[in-house]
Amino acid sequence: MKKYVYAFYEGDATMRNILGGKGANLAEMTKLGLPVPYGFTITTEACNHYYHSNKIITPEIQAEIRQAISELENISGKKFNDLHNPLLVSVRSGSRASMPGMMDTILNLGMNDTVVEVIAQKTNNERFAYDSYRRFIQMFADVVMGLSKSKFETIIDEIKEEKNVVSDQELDSEDFKEMVKRFKIFYKKNLHTSFPTDPHTQLLLAVEAVFKSWNNQRAIFYRKMNDIPHDWGTAVNVQMMVFGNMGEDCATGVAFSRNPSNGENHLFGEFLINAQGEDVVAGVRTPLPIEQLKALMPNAYHDFATIAKKLEHHYHDMQDMEFTIENNKLFMLQTRNGKRTATAALKIACDMVDEKLLTEKEALLSINPKHLDSLLHPQFNQEILKSATILTNGLAASPGAACGQIVFTAEDALKSHQNGKKVILVRLETSPEDIEGMAIAEGILTVRGGMTSHAAIVARGMGTCCVSGAGEIKINEANKTITINTTTLNEFDFISIDGSTGLVYAGEIPTIPATISKHFDRVMTWAKKYKKLSIRCNADTPQDAQLALQFGAEGIGLTRSEHMFFEADRIKAMREMIVAKTTTQRKNALAKLLPYQRSDFEQLFKIMENLPITIRYLDPPLHEFLPTSSYDIANIANEMKIDVGELKQIITSLHEFNPMMGHRGCRLAISYPEIAEMQTRAIIEAAININKQYNYHVTPEIMIPLIGDINEFKYLKNIIKETADNIIIANNVKLNYKIGTMIEIPRAALLADEIAQEAEFFSFGTNDLTQMTFGFSRDDAASFLTAYYDKKIYEHDPFVKIDQKGVGKLIQFATTLGKSTRPALKLGICGEHGGDPSTIEFCHHIGLDYVSCSPYRVPIAYIAAAQAAIKSHDH
Amino acid sequence: MKKYVYAFYEGDATMRNILGGKGANLAEMTKLGLPVPYGFTITTEACNHYYHSNKIITPEIQAEIRQAISELENISGKKFNDLHNPLLVSVRSGSRASMPGMMDTILNLGMNDTVVEVIAQKTNNERFAYDSYRRFIQMFADVVMGLSKSKFETIIDEIKEEKNVVSDQELDSEDFKEMVKRFKIFYKKNLHTSFPTDPHTQLLLAVEAVFKSWNNQRAIFYRKMNDIPHDWGTAVNVQMMVFGNMGEDCATGVAFSRNPSNGENHLFGEFLINAQGEDVVAGVRTPLPIEQLKALMPNAYHDFATIAKKLEHHYHDMQDMEFTIENNKLFMLQTRNGKRTATAALKIACDMVDEKLLTEKEALLSINPKHLDSLLHPQFNQEILKSATILTNGLAASPGAACGQIVFTAEDALKSHQNGKKVILVRLETSPEDIEGMAIAEGILTVRGGMTSHAAIVARGMGTCCVSGAGEIKINEANKTITINTTTLNEFDFISIDGSTGLVYAGEIPTIPATISKHFDRVMTWAKKYKKLSIRCNADTPQDAQLALQFGAEGIGLTRSEHMFFEADRIKAMREMIVAKTTTQRKNALAKLLPYQRSDFEQLFKIMENLPITIRYLDPPLHEFLPTSSYDIANIANEMKIDVGELKQIITSLHEFNPMMGHRGCRLAISYPEIAEMQTRAIIEAAININKQYNYHVTPEIMIPLIGDINEFKYLKNIIKETADNIIIANNVKLNYKIGTMIEIPRAALLADEIAQEAEFFSFGTNDLTQMTFGFSRDDAASFLTAYYDKKIYEHDPFVKIDQKGVGKLIQFATTLGKSTRPALKLGICGEHGGDPSTIEFCHHIGLDYVSCSPYRVPIAYIAAAQAAIKSHDH
Repeated sequence: MKKYVYAFYEGDATMRNILGGKGANLAEMTKLGLPVPYGFTITTEACNHYYHSNKIITPEIQAEIRQAISELENISGKKFNDLHNPLLVSVRSGSRASMPGMMDTILNLGMNDTVVEVIAQKTNNERFAYDSYRRFIQMFADVVMGLSKSKFETIIDEIKEEKNVVSDQELDSEDFKEMVKRFKIFYKKNLHTSFPTDPHTQLLLAVEAVFKSWNNQRAIFYRKMNDIPHDWGTAVNVQMMVFGNMGEDCATGVAFSRNPSNGENHLFGEFLINAQGEDVVAGVRTPLPIEQLKALMPNAYHDFATIAKKLEHHYHDMQDMEFTIENNKLFMLQTRNGKRTATAALKIACDMVDEKLLTEKEALLSINPKHLDSLLHPQFNQEILKSATILTNGLAASPGAACGQIVFTAEDALKSHQNGKKVILVRLETSPEDIEGMAIAEGILTVRGGMTSHAAIVARGMGTCCVSGAGEIKINEANKTITINTTTLNEFDFISIDGSTGLVYAGEIPTIPATISKHFDRVMTWAKKYKKLSIRCNADTPQDAQLALQFGAEGIGLTRSEHMFFEADRIKAMREMIVAKTTTQRKNALAKLLPYQRSDFEQLFKIMENLPITIRYLDPPLHEFLPTSSYDIANIANEMKIDVGELKQIITSLHEFNPMMGHRGCRLAISYPEIAEMQTRAIIEAAININKQYNYHVTPEIMIPLIGDINEFKYLKNIIKETADNIIIANNVKLNYKIGTMIEIPRAALLADEIAQEAEFFSFGTNDLTQMTFGFSRDDAASFLTAYYDKKIYEHDPFVKIDQKGVGKLIQFATTLGKSTRPALKLGICGEHGGDPSTIEFCHHIGLDYVSCSPYRVPIAYIAAAQAAIKSHDH
Repeated sequence: MKKYVYAFYEGDATMRNILGGKGANLAEMTKLGLPVPYGFTITTEACNHYYHSNKIITPEIQAEIRQAISELENISGKKFNDLHNPLLVSVRSGSRASMPGMMDTILNLGMNDTVVEVIAQKTNNERFAYDSYRRFIQMFADVVMGLSKSKFETIIDEIKEEKNVVSDQELDSEDFKEMVKRFKIFYKKNLHTSFPTDPHTQLLLAVEAVFKSWNNQRAIFYRKMNDIPHDWGTAVNVQMMVFGNMGEDCATGVAFSRNPSNGENHLFGEFLINAQGEDVVAGVRTPLPIEQLKALMPNAYHDFATIAKKLEHHYHDMQDMEFTIENNKLFMLQTRNGKRTATAALKIACDMVDEKLLTEKEALLSINPKHLDSLLHPQFNQEILKSATILTNGLAASPGAACGQIVFTAEDALKSHQNGKKVILVRLETSPEDIEGMAIAEGILTVRGGMTSHAAIVARGMGTCCVSGAGEIKINEANKTITINTTTLNEFDFISIDGSTGLVYAGEIPTIPATISKHFDRVMTWAKKYKKLSIRCNADTPQDAQLALQFGAEGIGLTRSEHMFFEADRIKAMREMIVAKTTTQRKNALAKLLPYQRSDFEQLFKIMENLPITIRYLDPPLHEFLPTSSYDIANIANEMKIDVGELKQIITSLHEFNPMMGHRGCRLAISYPEIAEMQTRAIIEAAININKQYNYHVTPEIMIPLIGDINEFKYLKNIIKETADNIIIANNVKLNYKIGTMIEIPRAALLADEIAQEAEFFSFGTNDLTQMTFGFSRDDAASFLTAYYDKKIYEHDPFVKIDQKGVGKLIQFATTLGKSTRPALKLGICGEHGGDPSTIEFCHHIGLDYVSCSPYRVPIAYIAAAQAAIKSHDH
């Protein structure tokens, strides 16, 4: 039979999955001989069992709990309801991963009218006994019965008023007795049942409350935000009470073994004399810094400091600990690896390596790569943030914080920027035409669009903060106002947005600029040493490329050649190309684009020296380059000297029902091979020029997008090869180049063996591959994915973290098939997933050669790639 | 070394792939001892070799040809250029499959100024000799050099004028001599080279011309239309000439061993006395019916009739033969299995079984299932069709022929229909709102949309003729006119369309109604006996179901439950449901839909008795149910008593970038589970009612669309089960039902093992699966697929014929994975491919349980399924 309850001495730190983090660490500390009050843990499996049994704690599990209590009674010599030595326990949740705020704690369980008197006598402290009792009622009502704690506060206020006192300290034992009486009445009145007096009943109800709280909205939300599976469940820790509030020789506190904010190596924390744990959190009394404990209770302090070091050495990590001092004796109530800022994480990692506490590899594993984002982008001043007003929230689409004045169009952004204003560009959604405005905005806020919407991708590439899909916002473009619920903001009103949390704030919140420390550099050196994957960047412009190089990019994995076509002077030629009626007209327009393209590539080749650069050919549907508003259409028709009606008809003819699955990618070049010819010419000529000028050996990687069939690839490869080879021969030079493809259509993955016969490299375009494999468009999914999260159908956004089971299967398939016909096939990934740590780990495992991500994610990719190699002992 | 040339006596009928159909049959006839003029075949591999060698006939192959000529000279005793007995040959193409019209024949090759004189002397017929010579020059110039035959006709006319005669018969030998002279001058003038005199040169040029003609536009188009791979190549047959034009004891003709039009068992054909083959085709002289040959040349006729029977017995098929009689001696020039109408195919099949010439299985294999379409739908009167004007062409979207008056809206169609008019509904594209108008139209013509557009699918379901994607048509909705190139037609002008060919004709062409013969029924009985697959139908209405039953459907594989929501009185409730702001409002609207749905299902259950019925839950995006024009929006808002602005906002909020990949399918029911509850209630209550009333045992099959994840399925399965079981318990009955899913998202196929743990059946939705696997939308693909066919990137439309390599791989994957976790998993296919013979064969091979197709395709599916079973000896 499965065991659902473990005494602390039966467990250890390795049993985290069933004991939860807290339970496992209590067991581990017990094993280490540290002063931990006796107790036991009800496993996470019991929680899942509860949910699978129609939310009933089955009799078997109830029996196990009662058995554990008996044992606890034996060991402690205390007993529930005992008239001499009554047992009081705390009940705490504790899941596999730390989930702060998910669950409240219940202290003093076991208390009732009889027990309180025994404790009063035994401690000779009636006030303490009744204070503990009333706290228990309050917590129990709140946590177990859902009757808010704060509702009891009015009773406390009444009593204080009657006594004409201000603080709790001034209340005496009689007051607390009265309080208990009134609490019980209030409890019964509101809950239509008496406060339970039997400790066993109290305990079962408390355990069930913990189980239930696993599925409260907050917990579900937190798990979603932190990629925690819903089926992990929570464990319940039941532990003998120790009291920090039994007198002046008692205390309770929390402390980190090092400073979690900056990483400095000293105890960092606070405590309260004569208090229970919740007082520290509640903020009614101001806790003292932990250093002062040294003077007040030197022995206890010494014990604690020793234990902190011991735990750090034991866990090889900075510890976050809770303790209680009962009559000068220290008890450890919890320890766990401490959360820390990215700055602290880097410093602690470096220090611990120097202290020989960690190897470089262990130090790398101690860093959460995602947290580096905060080092690379500005953040809000945390103090001012505390009092800021949240207006609404959207998706955390591109990290960093920004504040500025609201503008509604890219043109207005540019204009205001020229006038020295800092702006936040607020749009329903962005389009390629907005690029220039986006580039100079402090931040971008969109009403629609997901994590891989145009706004999100472009913003991440630029390192600009972006909140997307803030659906509560209603934009009135005519009046230039936005309304969020009842608040209306005008153009040029200040607003602040946090792209790391998705929150939108009213007014101006100052930001702190990004800072890169020497620790950062050191950690990157380690990462470079251990990672196997190459880290490339997605870069469309020389600026992107320069930035990515600074972050350590080892090449460009994706240059979207069309991103260069949106600039004002170029889009004209692009539009001429689109409206061309004959191949000759089209070729003439392309000839105008050629010098731009060539010079763009020259710049990229120059900056990247001889690092590999993968250039993707024209990809988006052509209508993206044409105007949409009647006004713009009229203007452009005029400019192009064609009839407005004709231009409208062209735009209509380019309309598609499902543009994502329409005439785009290689399909464009198959319809108009002259586009591929021009792009080839631009690349090859640029490479030849730069090789000559700088004596480089650039080897361009030409990438054909959206291939679904070997014949598509062959057709274009022939055109590209012929064009390229003619230029190379005409120039009488040697130039190597590669022709490969993006694998972004499921069919391409399924037929990768055929395609690899012709393609020299594959780059997995995981954005489109995810869309096609799931059958939903990233732009439209927002409307139903919320329901999916709420109903726990999906655990996380497949556009952020690769879906290993489905999309990943296709990628593995393609990898295996591709290598079967071309063992030397070069494999990479260049979708938005390229910067996601779990995806990078996956890429490492299936043996890709590189990942490519936006410049700001390069450091994250470094760490994630190193961690993947270290974890798999593959470095 | 590979052999590229085979003498007729070296080959046989099994070598069709390399000798081509004609060559293989000439070899086979030679083997049978029939009178075939000596000759040899240059293989299809030589043709491919030519294309792989930069369009050069390599010296090795040239040598083989010369060797074959030497041998032919030895056997025949004739020689190229011989002054006593010169060899003349014919050169004919012959690919693996019959490709009529692809290639012209060259006769009399070997002729030159010397040879013609020898022949004149030898035959004592100068006129014949020079007539043959001038014919050769004309054919050679046309076929080999691309100088049109008709250009020479003016010279013939000149000579006739000079002689003041009308017919060729009146010209004498001197006239033909003069003609030859002038032809050679004309040849040189136009082609800047003299007419080649060396027979070997003539032959090589002719062979190359045959190879080249494999890739002319006509041939490519024909192959595309007939699913013939481009890499089959063509063979070339070189054969000693025999002459049907050497005098009155000579003749030439073509005949079928049975009547190809109605199947009656007698020789059917025609001949000309003193003529060459081309004269029969050219239509200058009117050929005589074959029966008359009996009186004119009794021996030759007797020989031919005997050979015809012999060949029928040998090939077990009706033969299409060419013959020539030279000086009363019969020569066979070709035989092949004859093409026939569907009517004839069925009669011949039945007769041959009765004559013990074929077994039932062989008879089934002799029928092209696709041709049955013409039996089941009206066809144009072929005589009148010959003189009809073709306006344009589109896709052959739904078979049959129709003529009627043009109308532009579904409402106008209804109105005109009530006024007794027959109408053709002409639309840019159709939408669900057009259903009623489509139902009463004779035919449907759309400008946009592919083989699986809304118009195409609905029309096929209704058995209504439809031409879709006729892109040349410009509709002016305001003026109610259409313009095709320079022709403008008005509302109520007559137009005729052929949904079997995609052609659009001007004016009224009478149609002949569909007729089903006793032979049809007999063939169906055989098919039923041998097929393994069940044949179900896609049926949304009682009418569909009734029709499909008549055709032999063994169940319904797909009922699109939403198709019932578009009718006028129901769509109101549907719209109320969509605009509902609260769950309660939504439930109220759904309650109004419930009785409709229940009664629809009752009717279906009743009609189908106990046959299985698969009902798919609500699938399309909700915006499809809302109006689009401002006028309609205003009206409907008024009707629904909501604000126009509000309705507009709802419509805007439902707008999607890629609706095909948006909020639809199971995603709707996950957002609004009350929809699934209502649909479940309707199905279960309907089944209970019908079971009670008729003592049936209906087992509804509930199909959840667009599943991509096991959790989606589980979530909805729970809701459906709970709803269904509560109703069953409340009614105190026993009712079995199944819950399964469509596999139409690539991810579902990849994770089929997981999904099969919960789903009791899979139905492959190959329309969507093809779209997602290829990454293109069927509605948008038309814009680039033309280029794909032109450039030979695709051989055929993946929406018509399943893509076995890609989509098929996923289906096989899903089949294997699904059965791995649920061996009894029921598997079917319900996309548009379900009626395509090659797809059906594929479904048979991978072990599906059934295919489901539109009612009119049920007979086709029967035959295809039987053929698949017979071919694989699996019956």
